[in-house]
Amino acid sequence: MITDVLDFETRLAHGDHQAIKLWLRLLTTTTLVESELRTRLSATSDISLPRFDLLSQLEREPAGLRMSELSARLMVTRGNVTGLADQLESEGLVERTSGPDRRSVTLKLTPLGHERFGEIAEQHEGWVIMLLGALSQPEQEQLSALLGKLKAHLKARRA
Amino acid sequence: MITDVLDFETRLAHGDHQAIKLWLRLLTTTTLVESELRTRLSATSDISLPRFDLLSQLEREPAGLRMSELSARLMVTRGNVTGLADQLESEGLVERTSGPDRRSVTLKLTPLGHERFGEIAEQHEGWVIMLLGALSQPEQEQLSALLGKLKAHLKARRA
Repeated sequence: MITDVLDFETRLAHGDHQAIKLWLRLLTTTTLVESELRTRLSATSDISLPRFDLLSQLEREPAGLRMSELSARLMVTRGNVTGLADQLESEGLVERTSGPDRRSVTLKLTPLGHERFGEIAEQHEGWVIMLLGALSQPEQEQLSALLGKLKAHLKARRA
Repeated sequence: MITDVLDFETRLAHGDHQAIKLWLRLLTTTTLVESELRTRLSATSDISLPRFDLLSQLEREPAGLRMSELSARLMVTRGNVTGLADQLESEGLVERTSGPDRRSVTLKLTPLGHERFGEIAEQHEGWVIMLLGALSQPEQEQLSALLGKLKAHLKARRA
């Protein structure tokens, strides 16, 4: 028996519908890219993927984000966000400020956090370009259009 | 500020490379499908997504699988597999047997497990067909071919 790690298509049984094969292929491809990015991030920096995700959300919101908003965007629990924020604050990469109503806490990048994120984001972008580089530019555009159509349909279902 | 839950493309900053947009779109689409399947599974059965994944691996291996093999295929820790196996065994859906060398434990479906899995898999397949149904058959084939090319490239990198 050969271990076929990280390939959800191993789950397929004879006779499965085409849509199931497509779904497992989508899941496998995403997991492979994510796993590769995770390995590279942890090998070259002390910023894990969840930390990177949090910093990238803050990077595009100079005014900061409420913890509840961060939790929703990152799809992790409030407790997890608090834990990540505590670590990043102790390293001087983020800071907590009280919101205007003084009841909510807003998290934002410090100048150091902005700088460190920029360095890592540049590397991260290089890896993504390289990993997706198996597809030509027209193929990437085609893939983007198909996923865009599917995503719009799925989001409309949730609305 | 509008919460755009479950859309990793919210992470995009102005000027990000096309490959990053494609990667975040891939991640978002996969997460939306997975989240929808997870919700439906838990609403209609007592089989969570991790339990379903474990049962589907066993379904295609009538001789059973070693715990280490299951752990690798499901990409979860040995401890998690043990926990899931304990629950499923207590419900009579799987059974543990000693391997030929008597050192390794093999897990396989019971007849009841096979029957229950079949019922849920049929529903699950229907949901996947419906969720991916935003794309026509030719579009699904195109998407499958593009993902297949990308996946082969990513797997070759790991080999």
